[in-house]
Amino acid sequence: MSILVVGSVAFDSIETPHGAVDHCLGGAATHFSLAASYFTPVRVIAVVGEDFTAQHEAVLTKRGVDTQGIERAKGLSFHWTGSYEGNMDEAKTLGTDLNVFQTFEPKIPDAYADSKFLFLANIDPALQARVRSQMPQVRMVCGDTMNYWIADHSENLAKVLRDLDVLLINDGEVRMLADERNLVLAAEKVLSMGPKTLVVKHGEYGATAFFSDRSFGNGTKISRPFRAPALPLAEVVDPTGAGDSFAGGFYGYLASQPELTPAVFRTAMFYGGVMGSFAVERFGTERLQSVTREEIEERFNLFKEISHLEGA
Amino acid sequence: MSILVVGSVAFDSIETPHGAVDHCLGGAATHFSLAASYFTPVRVIAVVGEDFTAQHEAVLTKRGVDTQGIERAKGLSFHWTGSYEGNMDEAKTLGTDLNVFQTFEPKIPDAYADSKFLFLANIDPALQARVRSQMPQVRMVCGDTMNYWIADHSENLAKVLRDLDVLLINDGEVRMLADERNLVLAAEKVLSMGPKTLVVKHGEYGATAFFSDRSFGNGTKISRPFRAPALPLAEVVDPTGAGDSFAGGFYGYLASQPELTPAVFRTAMFYGGVMGSFAVERFGTERLQSVTREEIEERFNLFKEISHLEGA
Repeated sequence: MSILVVGSVAFDSIETPHGAVDHCLGGAATHFSLAASYFTPVRVIAVVGEDFTAQHEAVLTKRGVDTQGIERAKGLSFHWTGSYEGNMDEAKTLGTDLNVFQTFEPKIPDAYADSKFLFLANIDPALQARVRSQMPQVRMVCGDTMNYWIADHSENLAKVLRDLDVLLINDGEVRMLADERNLVLAAEKVLSMGPKTLVVKHGEYGATAFFSDRSFGNGTKISRPFRAPALPLAEVVDPTGAGDSFAGGFYGYLASQPELTPAVFRTAMFYGGVMGSFAVERFGTERLQSVTREEIEERFNLFKEISHLEGA
Repeated sequence: MSILVVGSVAFDSIETPHGAVDHCLGGAATHFSLAASYFTPVRVIAVVGEDFTAQHEAVLTKRGVDTQGIERAKGLSFHWTGSYEGNMDEAKTLGTDLNVFQTFEPKIPDAYADSKFLFLANIDPALQARVRSQMPQVRMVCGDTMNYWIADHSENLAKVLRDLDVLLINDGEVRMLADERNLVLAAEKVLSMGPKTLVVKHGEYGATAFFSDRSFGNGTKISRPFRAPALPLAEVVDPTGAGDSFAGGFYGYLASQPELTPAVFRTAMFYGGVMGSFAVERFGTERLQSVTREEIEERFNLFKEISHLEGA
């Protein structure tokens, strides 16, 4: 079933030990959409400027992504400049030009109204809440956020969290949100804020899902967490968008399944890792544009092989 | 088959957010022996001082550990003082009194000569090499080391590494030893130094094994790494000895099996995680003295459940 994603479609200027790119297509909604598009139809709500060309749009439409919710505004698109050093586990932001994103007012096209899966990418929680309230009929809502919103927009964020099915954030963010260093205690605290399920991304160490009594609507009780591996990679060319690609693979798979079961959720975590591992192999969206479904299945099997006792 | 371990039997004075203990029984060889004792017979070579009582020895002998290789010397036993703060992912050493360990000359009792599995716990690589050379007939040698030996005793360490079947160290150590930030590249470099297999411990994120062409003597080729999870724990009382307990569970299981196969190696990685997860539940050796084989199997299944797609 279709996923509706609201978030940034932007340009990134990135420098890593493997090279540099200037104004390549990026943004959370872009990475998410491409990754999810291999599993399920995706519809995007975003705003771009006059520098967003037909060629940029084709990157999304070629993957079947519905772009009619991408609004064109006067001015330039959101532009992020950043660099990675050493082990590249943290981005250093050198510049954030919000441009047309500054006055972004998400509008939901009528054709998107029947979307059953909503993804609130990492944007102002006030905007996340506004989109959410316009989609009362969705079956599932998954969301992301970041340190900036946790620190300075906690009231608006709290409203979004109350109503989330899945919150997908990284280690540092969950510890910051809970103000607690222990991951399990932090996860419990975050689950008490509203999300039915919490997925914590650990970068090169994989991801952990924490479940509440409300994780599975069908009465399934799961109290154990679930850990999915990341693929050890000899070369990470550009980590930008890895988390959004994880989210896309994860949520795209979930949305493609008839029912949310523990097995489906676990498999989705693996597909998240798979799409994240592809994303970092090239700069920008390059790898996610060209990966094939066969390569995805092959890598899924590789993830199983490196983590399952009977895998070899 | 029997494991021979050489390493420290010591006293630890530890402070963590959960309390403090003074002069509790510790040391790498102690934690290793207790953890391994649930899988296979263990023989210890170490030196202790006059403060090591029959009661301390009984902690080991009650678990069937052969202590005739523990030499008594005049003076006090090795004593480590340390503390953990915050997320407790790093120990802060407040004092290291080598005492009788300063002049330790490992001697191998005749009764130990037929040991087929040797574990070189984290001690001076010159001593590790000396013990190794006296045990030419062993089937397998597994070793540990730490930043201090990597930095200041690299020549002696290089000699030990050349001849190791398995090197078991943590993330920071492998990156330091290889002088390389990327884990895969660092692992490749360390494998080129000699160890047939490298197991990297990631603390709360589990562990990864990297295999070389020489990992399995029987012609089995494995180029994929293997990742074992750690159990997310709401309470870590005392992380001291977690790595040694991992090594004990891992190597104890390996030594208990008739043959080294990829499946045996994977299972050993899981048992390593299991024993590490018990070790941190109480101060010092308390938990590893009292755990039962049933609890170990139960937790092994839990590790499988939290990491396997079909686990729930």
